[in-house]
Amino acid sequence: MPTISKRAHEMIASPIRKYLPAAQAAAKRGIKVYGLNIGQPDLLAPTVFWKEVSKWRKGVLAYAPSTGLAEAQEAWSTYFQRRGLPLAPKDVLITTGGSEAIFFSMAVTCDPGDEIIVFEPLYSSYKSYAGALNIKLVPVTLSSDNGYHLPSRKMIEKAVTKRTRAMVVINPNNPTGAVFTRAELTRVAAVAKKYHLWIIADETYRDLVFVGGKTVSIYEIPGAAPYVILTDSASKRMNLCGARVGCLASTSTDVMANTLKLAQARLSSPTIEQLAVNPLLTGSQKYLDEIRNEYRRRRDAVYGALRKMQGVKVHQPEGAFYLMATLPVKNSEDFVKFMLGNFAYKSQTVFVTPGEDFYSTPGKGRNEVRIAYVLKVKDLKIAMEVLEKGLQAFILKSQWRNPNDK
Amino acid sequence: MPTISKRAHEMIASPIRKYLPAAQAAAKRGIKVYGLNIGQPDLLAPTVFWKEVSKWRKGVLAYAPSTGLAEAQEAWSTYFQRRGLPLAPKDVLITTGGSEAIFFSMAVTCDPGDEIIVFEPLYSSYKSYAGALNIKLVPVTLSSDNGYHLPSRKMIEKAVTKRTRAMVVINPNNPTGAVFTRAELTRVAAVAKKYHLWIIADETYRDLVFVGGKTVSIYEIPGAAPYVILTDSASKRMNLCGARVGCLASTSTDVMANTLKLAQARLSSPTIEQLAVNPLLTGSQKYLDEIRNEYRRRRDAVYGALRKMQGVKVHQPEGAFYLMATLPVKNSEDFVKFMLGNFAYKSQTVFVTPGEDFYSTPGKGRNEVRIAYVLKVKDLKIAMEVLEKGLQAFILKSQWRNPNDK
Repeated sequence: MPTISKRAHEMIASPIRKYLPAAQAAAKRGIKVYGLNIGQPDLLAPTVFWKEVSKWRKGVLAYAPSTGLAEAQEAWSTYFQRRGLPLAPKDVLITTGGSEAIFFSMAVTCDPGDEIIVFEPLYSSYKSYAGALNIKLVPVTLSSDNGYHLPSRKMIEKAVTKRTRAMVVINPNNPTGAVFTRAELTRVAAVAKKYHLWIIADETYRDLVFVGGKTVSIYEIPGAAPYVILTDSASKRMNLCGARVGCLASTSTDVMANTLKLAQARLSSPTIEQLAVNPLLTGSQKYLDEIRNEYRRRRDAVYGALRKMQGVKVHQPEGAFYLMATLPVKNSEDFVKFMLGNFAYKSQTVFVTPGEDFYSTPGKGRNEVRIAYVLKVKDLKIAMEVLEKGLQAFILKSQWRNPNDK
Repeated sequence: MPTISKRAHEMIASPIRKYLPAAQAAAKRGIKVYGLNIGQPDLLAPTVFWKEVSKWRKGVLAYAPSTGLAEAQEAWSTYFQRRGLPLAPKDVLITTGGSEAIFFSMAVTCDPGDEIIVFEPLYSSYKSYAGALNIKLVPVTLSSDNGYHLPSRKMIEKAVTKRTRAMVVINPNNPTGAVFTRAELTRVAAVAKKYHLWIIADETYRDLVFVGGKTVSIYEIPGAAPYVILTDSASKRMNLCGARVGCLASTSTDVMANTLKLAQARLSSPTIEQLAVNPLLTGSQKYLDEIRNEYRRRRDAVYGALRKMQGVKVHQPEGAFYLMATLPVKNSEDFVKFMLGNFAYKSQTVFVTPGEDFYSTPGKGRNEVRIAYVLKVKDLKIAMEVLEKGLQAFILKSQWRNPNDK
């Protein structure tokens, strides 16, 4: 038989999605599974979005231009400019979710064998696309000790080689919830400038921040703009995960012209959704306050519970809706499998994601898990109780199996 | 400044889309432009699709599974099985348009430097994705003399090297309109079997065929199935270009498991549309007769007019809604630019696509154009009249500029 490509073969299965069958099996056994594994909030999509969708009753459903429809480019530009980001409509290309923007940003900057500096733990899609595109990720490992904030300029510079083409900065961060400061971003910009590197700035969670009032965008750093390729998404801040609307933006005409070629290969992004999000981009931004406040309450519930759990190390997230927690276990993958396959407390269990696959360095993150606090506070409180019981049971079970093992 | 990747730099701008600005400029000058450049029919999206879309009034718009929603996998499987294709729901992965299926099929089979045999002229997205993925296309050139049908088995085998991983077979064909016979497909399958190659079978236009009652699917060739990766799309046969729904299908569990990893990187395909096409897949297929008959009338109008034009060589298309025409010009790109930039007949012009970019061999197809007959018969008749006038004017102009040049 013919063979599968090495690039596909060596790609990791999504850590966020690969345990889904085990979770489904648990549900079939009658167990309620609290899903904190994926950034899929339980919040309703905005009414105005449905209103826009239901306007479509007939007509020709044509391809959008590969750049996105002009109305959509303008709406994103308006959204950005309100926040002080100097992005004109022509600087914006509409993508099918933020994922496609990540794919484009990596393909447009790197050839096979080229390197991208990433701060780990990092959102796992970057790892997947690096595999698909034969790009080498060079990790700079962050520490839970300082809440996964960025290291010194020197530490970043150590990762630069002749093959380095770009750095990825996810801010607010998925999976850690860290929000980077102006000083941290200034370091990144300085390294970009010195070594002529692109900054792939993923600001998907820009509006979900609980400290300092707002996220400092990379565009606020003097001199950074020419180096920036921004990736963004409507999925999280608008509760529109299934709509698949995002964008890539850059003031570099070179980036935009070459990204367009990649975009033309896939013809266009879906027409209905890219128009339906526009009122949310251009209209009142008050709905964001509501969403932010809701996540703050959720964060407080989860962080409050976790910090009291014996042996658990956790840092207060400053934005987004994730956190990385260090558990008193050897291998969090075993713990996740245990929770889904062998455990239930009052017929309930919790589904979190093993930390290892958010690291690019093999073996790192084995005692960590990512928790997405995407459920109602009431549910999160129960989930944390179940998690604690599960952790105790898992530790007990491990001790019983390996009595001499600490 | 940082640099752009070679892969992006060397990608071609979509031939189908790169002249769009010139067409828009013509329209601004008050000229009616008949757009025969892109496979974007003027037919209305089916009522049942809009009905499904407008059912969404509220709720959580969640990510679909990376495979696609089970309902969607089942609907495509039903559609395939009705046509005798042995594809179970688990053999189907829903993609964002047929384009994404093409991308996945190439990435899952080839590493950088690997080769795919293509029959040229070919749909240009294959060229684009080959560039993005550093895959080498090895063209087998078809001839207008036999209506762009496949060559002998020997000719195909000549293109096989140690790096060959797959062959692309688009049937019915874009851009030629050829529909391959059982004998031709049997040759392809024999080569696949002998050299252990994947057959990337693009059957997007399966239901748009004007000869022999129906398209012979690659799955009807005994022994072919284990080698097949099918790409398909709802765009054309359902008039749903802007919906971006397609699929990749294969009975190879290896292909499906590894494609899933690629699919997980982009999380999911849009939820609303992948559900909304299902009644069209599972319900009455009568709407296809209507669409097929309409395209047959359009084909007759375009082919009938072209075959009478002096110096134009054209073969009767057997399926899809494209044809390649050989024009009495040196460089059809100049002709296309002339039509959009310098010509008008009764304030009208025609937008067709230069043939060269549908070829992988540099320099081939320079005197050809692709015509997509996607307008009403009435409009196509006028468009053909305008095309003929334009061709005469272009030839006259060329002669005037180069009096000694034939």
